Amino acid sequence: LLQKNTQTKLMHLLILCWTAVIHYYQVVLKKPLTVPYRHMFGPGPSNVPSRILEAGANPVIGHMHPEIFEIMNDIKSGIQYMFQTQNKMTLAVSGTGHSAMECAIFNAVEPGESVLVAVNGIWGERAAEMAERIGARVNTIVAPPGGCFTIEEMEKALSKHRPTLLFVAHGESSTGVLHPLDGIGQLCHKYNCLFLVDSVASIGGAPVYMDQQEIDILYTGSQKVLNAPPGTAPISFSERACQKIFSRRTKPVSFYLDLSWLANYWGCDGKPSRVYHHTGPVTAFYSLRESLSVLVEEGLENSWERHLKVAEYFHAGLESMGLKLFVKEKRLRLPTVTTIVAPYGYDWKEITSYIMKTHNLEISGGLGPSVGLVLRVGLMGCNSSRENVDMVLAALKDALKHCHKSKV
Amino acid sequence: LLQKNTQTKLMHLLILCWTAVIHYYQVVLKKPLTVPYRHMFGPGPSNVPSRILEAGANPVIGHMHPEIFEIMNDIKSGIQYMFQTQNKMTLAVSGTGHSAMECAIFNAVEPGESVLVAVNGIWGERAAEMAERIGARVNTIVAPPGGCFTIEEMEKALSKHRPTLLFVAHGESSTGVLHPLDGIGQLCHKYNCLFLVDSVASIGGAPVYMDQQEIDILYTGSQKVLNAPPGTAPISFSERACQKIFSRRTKPVSFYLDLSWLANYWGCDGKPSRVYHHTGPVTAFYSLRESLSVLVEEGLENSWERHLKVAEYFHAGLESMGLKLFVKEKRLRLPTVTTIVAPYGYDWKEITSYIMKTHNLEISGGLGPSVGLVLRVGLMGCNSSRENVDMVLAALKDALKHCHKSKV
Repeated sequence: LLQKNTQTKLMHLLILCWTAVIHYYQVVLKKPLTVPYRHMFGPGPSNVPSRILEAGANPVIGHMHPEIFEIMNDIKSGIQYMFQTQNKMTLAVSGTGHSAMECAIFNAVEPGESVLVAVNGIWGERAAEMAERIGARVNTIVAPPGGCFTIEEMEKALSKHRPTLLFVAHGESSTGVLHPLDGIGQLCHKYNCLFLVDSVASIGGAPVYMDQQEIDILYTGSQKVLNAPPGTAPISFSERACQKIFSRRTKPVSFYLDLSWLANYWGCDGKPSRVYHHTGPVTAFYSLRESLSVLVEEGLENSWERHLKVAEYFHAGLESMGLKLFVKEKRLRLPTVTTIVAPYGYDWKEITSYIMKTHNLEISGGLGPSVGLVLRVGLMGCNSSRENVDMVLAALKDALKHCHKSKV
Repeated sequence: LLQKNTQTKLMHLLILCWTAVIHYYQVVLKKPLTVPYRHMFGPGPSNVPSRILEAGANPVIGHMHPEIFEIMNDIKSGIQYMFQTQNKMTLAVSGTGHSAMECAIFNAVEPGESVLVAVNGIWGERAAEMAERIGARVNTIVAPPGGCFTIEEMEKALSKHRPTLLFVAHGESSTGVLHPLDGIGQLCHKYNCLFLVDSVASIGGAPVYMDQQEIDILYTGSQKVLNAPPGTAPISFSERACQKIFSRRTKPVSFYLDLSWLANYWGCDGKPSRVYHHTGPVTAFYSLRESLSVLVEEGLENSWERHLKVAEYFHAGLESMGLKLFVKEKRLRLPTVTTIVAPYGYDWKEITSYIMKTHNLEISGGLGPSVGLVLRVGLMGCNSSRENVDMVLAALKDALKHCHKSKV
């Protein structure tokens, strides 16, 4: 009897608990969603113009309807333009930039194969980690934050390690370095190696010629220069990359990112019909298409030119304030994401917090190997303008005036 | 001299080609995006109410801003409610349903471990393929399309194969079967096995009690009963699942889907600060949160009840038309996706095409093992109403009148 009494009490207690939990759900989820507007001048995501947001609010249609295939074909054309390639194996991964990085590595590399990673910031570190996870033999060449690699260093490492894949980050957004690409593709092919380039932070803001520079796999994200919401990741594969990928002995570890399935879904494999693979994020495709339309309207060369000019104007402004640029050599400065040496005597976190609080503006600190060393400002796509530079410079001046400075 | 001439000609030809390509990009991408409105009564994605579409068109904020963490916390609460769980390890994967399936398998299984998959449609087939790709030893039990498994069959297979993970699809949308779940969790734990359930097509439309039914990993997609756009996938892990996952000897193959990173990003690991993992699809999080708000407003039990009532009304209507339901036993019929035996003497493709063309309404044919056998109608979330049933029935009547019927 006593035991039964205890059971009943316990049950009542459980019901009470669950009621409290349900009440909590109702309270939090019955509050309407509120999202502030903010100047997104960090390393990404950048601001999304209402034109692109509205495109993404169009009604959902099927992931296998003819209309979505047409939209996907348009996206393919836009990516080919942005990447300066005629690769038919061009598509967008249904995930953010990291999923494109995995898509590249998962498909191009088989367990036991050798991969060479040029590490001069966080993206190299992450590419190396991804390749290791799938059982590749990974070798790295490492440059200090802010540095990059010469062609000679690349050749030395290629001839030593004889990798099947070389990874280079074109826009190393953690350090602000724009890595020169000319000649590396040709070098890779001399050593029978595929050339994989991360252009998440650079594409559309700095010249990349996928075909001419003999890049075998190139990917980016939607949320940087393209000014679309994060969630899709353009990627393209050369004929040479496809030859290796489609003669693999093992299946890639991921079904979701398996290029043979993706190629069919995106109509890149020449087959007459498309087979259901996964449910493509159709509304994200709408906004990605719209962002590519914006790029086509401006013209790629004009976009490169604008990003460069605005960056130069910004850099001059920073230097005239007495701030130092983290990347010494001008030609190695990423025009999309600028790294500023963390101002001496200040706590960088106080600066970014002050600017967020007072100016409703995001700039950020370092990432990975650059934490504590830099402030990072991203002016990408529609955000790359002289007006925005003036806004950031004013915010920085204000922060340096109002934040604590040690007496040192 | 002759050779130089040829080179010049070739260069001119190349420039001409490229100009033509550029012109093509401009033509296709300068056409404005147009998306038709359509009744999405296939197996998903379903229609997205404007309230949820508009939520997704809010301005982009940072993936590490405090406001997005609050939105992610709200999503977590909403998923806990929908899944009827108090698991702290509850989050949404930044991809579609298949990526959640991979997230579950990649994290829960190490190479060489034994996995048991209950295959009664396409989802079991795909889960088996995913587990094989990462080097698991996969065993299956197979039921014909439309069938499911008894507790005795489950126990026999568990005791024979001693797997570390059992996969069951709760809503097998390819065949229209709602698989009973009661007792399987307890059975799995008797055999020291984790219980993984796919509820992509069922959750919110049919009862699932994650904690009570001792489900260890449960996932779904955003685009079915939730009526959000495809692109995010709710998932939850029990304490038991976490214990296995966090004592792995090897790293999961995917960095993007690694639970230890995701747990930190979603604030599920109790650590004081969140580290940058990937750029969460913030606008997709907005619409996911809104869709969970809608569910909380209606109440989960009310939603189950409505889906069941509407399905019964639909099934009665189909039978009164002389059509046959593919799943014979009433209690095994999925209330969200109905499979109708492909009408005798007709070409199913002609029926679905006719209905799309004439009624602007999507219903679909079979998938995987059910191709050619069935028509599939999904009425999920806001689409589950008597009015929509009447619309589908009228469209079907019209199609059967106008489509070709063989004399047989």
